[in-house]
Amino acid sequence: MTLHALTPADEIQRRIARLQDAMKAHGMDAMLISDNANIYYTSGRVFSGYVYIPATGKATYFIRRPEGITDGEVKYIRKPEQIVELLSEEGASLPAVMGYELSSLDVMSYRRLVNAFPGVTPADASPVIKSVRSVKTDFELEQLRRSGIRHQRVYDLIPRLYKEGMTDIELQIEIERASRLEGCLGIFRIAGDSMEFFMSNILAGDNADSPTPYDFAMGGAGLDPSLPVGADGTVIKPGMSVMVDSNGNFTGYMTDMTRVFACGQLDEKALQAHECSIEICRSLEKAGKPGTPAAELYETAMSIVRNHDLERYFMGHKQKAGFIGHGVGIEINELPVIAPRSRDILTKHNVIALEPKFVIPGVGAVGVENTYIVTDNGLERITNAPERIINLM
Amino acid sequence: MTLHALTPADEIQRRIARLQDAMKAHGMDAMLISDNANIYYTSGRVFSGYVYIPATGKATYFIRRPEGITDGEVKYIRKPEQIVELLSEEGASLPAVMGYELSSLDVMSYRRLVNAFPGVTPADASPVIKSVRSVKTDFELEQLRRSGIRHQRVYDLIPRLYKEGMTDIELQIEIERASRLEGCLGIFRIAGDSMEFFMSNILAGDNADSPTPYDFAMGGAGLDPSLPVGADGTVIKPGMSVMVDSNGNFTGYMTDMTRVFACGQLDEKALQAHECSIEICRSLEKAGKPGTPAAELYETAMSIVRNHDLERYFMGHKQKAGFIGHGVGIEINELPVIAPRSRDILTKHNVIALEPKFVIPGVGAVGVENTYIVTDNGLERITNAPERIINLM
Repeated sequence: MTLHALTPADEIQRRIARLQDAMKAHGMDAMLISDNANIYYTSGRVFSGYVYIPATGKATYFIRRPEGITDGEVKYIRKPEQIVELLSEEGASLPAVMGYELSSLDVMSYRRLVNAFPGVTPADASPVIKSVRSVKTDFELEQLRRSGIRHQRVYDLIPRLYKEGMTDIELQIEIERASRLEGCLGIFRIAGDSMEFFMSNILAGDNADSPTPYDFAMGGAGLDPSLPVGADGTVIKPGMSVMVDSNGNFTGYMTDMTRVFACGQLDEKALQAHECSIEICRSLEKAGKPGTPAAELYETAMSIVRNHDLERYFMGHKQKAGFIGHGVGIEINELPVIAPRSRDILTKHNVIALEPKFVIPGVGAVGVENTYIVTDNGLERITNAPERIINLM
Repeated sequence: MTLHALTPADEIQRRIARLQDAMKAHGMDAMLISDNANIYYTSGRVFSGYVYIPATGKATYFIRRPEGITDGEVKYIRKPEQIVELLSEEGASLPAVMGYELSSLDVMSYRRLVNAFPGVTPADASPVIKSVRSVKTDFELEQLRRSGIRHQRVYDLIPRLYKEGMTDIELQIEIERASRLEGCLGIFRIAGDSMEFFMSNILAGDNADSPTPYDFAMGGAGLDPSLPVGADGTVIKPGMSVMVDSNGNFTGYMTDMTRVFACGQLDEKALQAHECSIEICRSLEKAGKPGTPAAELYETAMSIVRNHDLERYFMGHKQKAGFIGHGVGIEINELPVIAPRSRDILTKHNVIALEPKFVIPGVGAVGVENTYIVTDNGLERITNAPERIINLM
């Protein structure tokens, strides 16, 4: 079994080098990574253990499980306390300042690591890693494009999956199956513990106006108070919109895409809001270039919404989301955040999802979501399913 | 929208009272809960926010999202810093010692909470909550029994889902669909960040011998290095075992069940190991009573394995798991842990999954897993699908 699996060794080196540049700029002498998403980013596979990255020199992979990885700078350990000893056997000096993933590491694990490195000053590596990961390499862009193509194929199938009289969850289950047959990995990585989700979010009719605890753009009551989000068993009927926001994780890198379906014609207000969403996308595609403040994209979107007098429906009706887009990659909530008070500035090869959505009472949710690569010429769309509302009948 | 949703108010009171007894015994004056699983346990629904539980008196629910919960001791907040102020408005004095969930709370969130409660000494509430949650109430046992019944219905369908020439993942996708149509909620709550999983684990043939990074009983290479566990695309052929360990979360409370399928007859060694697994279950069902050390159950299992000379295949072949069972409920890795060095003692109304499994090279994984309630008369099985190896042809 190889450490880097499907990711070329020079790609891993490129990522490590970027992290090292950022570490130096932030006064860190090393970082110790244990979050699965970051382990995948810095090695090419998920393993149980730690990646030790000095500001200069080679990364060392301290692996607990799985057994049998033989290549690369791999050392097997049973517990993190062995890392110090193994590093000193290598002749490596201990760092003065070590970065840990303070946004994802639990307190007990953190204390244990800090105790294992006596005399080493801990620092927060999470912002550094998030920032580096927000700028995708060519290899990562390729994974995202591949996900986008397969993601579109699933959306193309949806009209054939619908049968008259179906509930939202019955349609969702058929979309889940079609996704999985297309190669969707199913899991949906979200940084932090507080957001939960299963596979996709299908909202039919007024269920879109049910507020959710989670920090997603749209809500839905869900089927059980233990997971109060998404489909709630609503029977799909003419006049309702059916918004499909389905998992695009086909490669370990996720695209995010939303489309709207309906049985027959929707109310005029909903059609107008859907067109407004597409207009926002077209406008932001031009505006979104390296150097553009994320907050400016939000303001541009808001001014279009105001022009159409649709503020009260924008990003939710009873409960509103505070953002219209977010970075995406290994996780669904990466940088930059497209929100009014965001300080993020768009950078070349950021990958962002934009989701200007509306909830129209009596109809449901409308609007599209696309995933984009930030390029010198604006945003390159990599989720290319048709954007118009598709009739299921 | 009601706070307690489907969980009766007196049930919530019972849980809070148990937590308060445990807090007093551990010298805590209050605890502040923010983990979704614990929020669900102490309120009956998942919300974004905090549950403040003083050692004496009523719990207060500080909610960020969703909007619209009107009953109960609910206070809406935008940020945790408001909690101190709102408590003092109520005339509540600040606790001297406050418990936080140090096994799940990330370092940055923890620091923010500690700063929001100046002069309050922080303590670790995670072990206290885990211990209380490990003893289920009658209401929780009912949820688990209901999950077990629906879980069995899914297993009963499996022979009809198989078609000749299928891969493991193709069969898995049909089982996922059948589960979801039966009401499975899909998500699989696991305490901690390091274990990842999508819906179920289907292992065909020698893929069962591929080691995984995750701390599950069985492995599998998976379909992608970003999620290296479970089905890997193996075509199911005569002579291979097909082990199905599928998600039993139908009520917010999960049962855990594994059964084995095959096309035609398996090798004698595999049949013998499967019988040994069933023998272990029967034996532990009698031995597992309140007061029994979890480590003793492990030893009993090992002695049966030794009698059959099957040690080298037990709990994995190339890579072995270090436990044969675990508590289960809202999360899949609850207390007690059934492992050689476990200090846990079985308590009445613990709910445990026992999974004495084997990996036989050239055949695959065999053995069963069942979920049990610890009663005065031994273990009560709540996962009742037939345990024999079922022929798919």
